[in-house]
Amino acid sequence: MAEYEQMLTANEEWARNFAGELPVRPRRAVAVVACMDSRMPLFPLLGLAVGDAHVIRNAGGVVTEDTIRSLTISQHLLGTREIVLVHHTDCGLQKTDDTAFADLVEQATGHRPPWPAQAFTDVDEDVRESIRRLRASPYLLSREICGTVYDVATGRLREVAAEG
Amino acid sequence: MAEYEQMLTANEEWARNFAGELPVRPRRAVAVVACMDSRMPLFPLLGLAVGDAHVIRNAGGVVTEDTIRSLTISQHLLGTREIVLVHHTDCGLQKTDDTAFADLVEQATGHRPPWPAQAFTDVDEDVRESIRRLRASPYLLSREICGTVYDVATGRLREVAAEG
Repeated sequence: MAEYEQMLTANEEWARNFAGELPVRPRRAVAVVACMDSRMPLFPLLGLAVGDAHVIRNAGGVVTEDTIRSLTISQHLLGTREIVLVHHTDCGLQKTDDTAFADLVEQATGHRPPWPAQAFTDVDEDVRESIRRLRASPYLLSREICGTVYDVATGRLREVAAEG
Repeated sequence: MAEYEQMLTANEEWARNFAGELPVRPRRAVAVVACMDSRMPLFPLLGLAVGDAHVIRNAGGVVTEDTIRSLTISQHLLGTREIVLVHHTDCGLQKTDDTAFADLVEQATGHRPPWPAQAFTDVDEDVRESIRRLRASPYLLSREICGTVYDVATGRLREVAAEG
């Protein structure tokens, strides 16, 4: 059975216990921007209930043009204001660099990506770089931002910087 | 108390019950691409355990250059192959269009976004458009793709298309 078939089957259980429809606007008016890492189930990890917060995730949890697009929609259309960044220890993007990654993809596929992988070495500095990118965007309505790092060895979230 | 402070407090409970470190590579070799909507806690909704799958989320769950960047890293560096798309009913992006959204942001901030909101009307067609974009990318190693729509009124996930 393919993974998606297992997910469709598992969803039947979720639907049987479904608590009912909620509004489209996040109740706590907050958007979380986090890495795609499989070890971070953000709802229990951050104490979020269904309907509380937007959750934006990509490789690294970095701020790209698409992150800004999502946050601009989140703030202008759906009323969120606070932004919480969640990067983490032992990230896949700390195990490569942008040139080595482009080489790897080109060797495997014959095509060299024109975009950078967004690899990094220092996770705290990567959080601060994401905050700088958010502050530089002219499209957001709010710059209440907190940057955190999640330790995948202990389950503990640590604040790196907060402002706004 | 700011939202992030509540999350840091809630995380203390998570860390106290932390089950231990897991490998960086997703156990089920699958990446989920979903909308940022606050009503979709993907781990219980899809039956995912901690460590099972990468989770990529943005406004709409659409396939952008950043989605391709994340999936390319997921497949080349961290061994995933299957891709599962999760769009949903009652999406914020069905309540606007790209021009109206750019107008809204320009009126509020004085700056007109150069990128499209990626608004849509037909959610099934939006899933199929995301699948076409994945198939058109030369950087992925696998095109095992399933597209689904989640009904926020019932909690039920419905398959739209599967291939690969």
